[in-house]
Amino acid sequence: MHLFYTPDIDPKLSQYFLTEEESKHAIRVLRLVVGDLVTLIDGKGGLYSAEIKDPHPKRTILHINSVELNYQKRNHYLHIAIAPTKNIERTEWFLEKATEIGIDEISLIICQRSERKEAKIDRLNKIITSAVKQSIKAYHPVLNEAVTLSQFIKSSNDSQKYIAHCINSEKTTLSQTLIPGRKTLVLIGPEGDFTPNEVDTALQSGFNPISLGESRLRTETAALEACFEVNFLNRI
Amino acid sequence: MHLFYTPDIDPKLSQYFLTEEESKHAIRVLRLVVGDLVTLIDGKGGLYSAEIKDPHPKRTILHINSVELNYQKRNHYLHIAIAPTKNIERTEWFLEKATEIGIDEISLIICQRSERKEAKIDRLNKIITSAVKQSIKAYHPVLNEAVTLSQFIKSSNDSQKYIAHCINSEKTTLSQTLIPGRKTLVLIGPEGDFTPNEVDTALQSGFNPISLGESRLRTETAALEACFEVNFLNRI
Repeated sequence: MHLFYTPDIDPKLSQYFLTEEESKHAIRVLRLVVGDLVTLIDGKGGLYSAEIKDPHPKRTILHINSVELNYQKRNHYLHIAIAPTKNIERTEWFLEKATEIGIDEISLIICQRSERKEAKIDRLNKIITSAVKQSIKAYHPVLNEAVTLSQFIKSSNDSQKYIAHCINSEKTTLSQTLIPGRKTLVLIGPEGDFTPNEVDTALQSGFNPISLGESRLRTETAALEACFEVNFLNRI
Repeated sequence: MHLFYTPDIDPKLSQYFLTEEESKHAIRVLRLVVGDLVTLIDGKGGLYSAEIKDPHPKRTILHINSVELNYQKRNHYLHIAIAPTKNIERTEWFLEKATEIGIDEISLIICQRSERKEAKIDRLNKIITSAVKQSIKAYHPVLNEAVTLSQFIKSSNDSQKYIAHCINSEKTTLSQTLIPGRKTLVLIGPEGDFTPNEVDTALQSGFNPISLGESRLRTETAALEACFEVNFLNRI
């Protein structure tokens, strides 16, 4: 299946022009010809079946045959806020896997103990887009620019809100408290964990403290565990 | 915490000699001195508290202060058989994450559509050992040499046995069928999936076909999803 990510496509029109880069890929690399079928995803739920109408290597014209809106629309909304890891590859792995498994929004939070104070979201977004195409998702997860934890907490809306931390204190679990079919937000801290102050601030802003199991998990593993749990609890 | 993996340690003895490599690491790199505390894990459930008795850079002597056997013993046994990925880094990533989350045994299976026909388990075992130390697990997962899928199926014993595949046919899920507290075995196929013949052979040998959700998952992601589901179902 030849798949293109076309976020600017208009579902009402029957024709679409690939960008110069995508045209070159379609015609020079994939060697598509008139009549060949391709699939387009717009990142907002639209899955389009199209065919090559004019195989121009700089401006390929596609004819849209059909469109399916709300393709595999998720039955819940998952937002994970994660402290980007010192080794940014680990965060890239998380973004790829979370996109495969199912996620709607990712925020990057800089915490007191964060060793990484900033992250380039252009590259991280490319990782997500690749995973979207590879796993044929019509919805493209949203990735937000890095902000401090306190800025993020101040701006967080009324989802079911959780903070996963390693301090030895009273916690619940997602299996005990999550209500399926709704919006869920989980905070995942840096390699050295959230500070007691950061946890307190979150609790005072309505976040519930959760455990993600007995094991000691790396930041990106904890984030993926949270992603697994929320998706799983929305399936069973 | 300074942690050493010492699979050859005898829990009955009160003294232990580090290997030349570990001695060099303890004395030249970590710069430990007489009286400094270290933790040893034997991979079989033993967690030892020890201290430096003689800081020799080639033959460090430790005094064992206490030992905890069956440290964080798992309440179930999970065995995943996975087709090693063409890009071996992806399998390495799975081994690291599965070790963090919890796994007892991993087998490598070469399937008809496997692009990778062999895998060096020495390097893969090192990845597991690093993850064991990093996540402070006293039990070291067992990694088995690669065999063909049919060899593996012939030798599989009587766990709850599952095969996860993408062919559109009747399947169940782990949440519907898994009995917690027992031995579970899950087969994960290569990038091109198991062939219908391979699935039939597995079904005839008592494997149950399962779905790991609606998403299209890469091999290593599917393996981790299975790992996550089995651990989760043994927690709730």
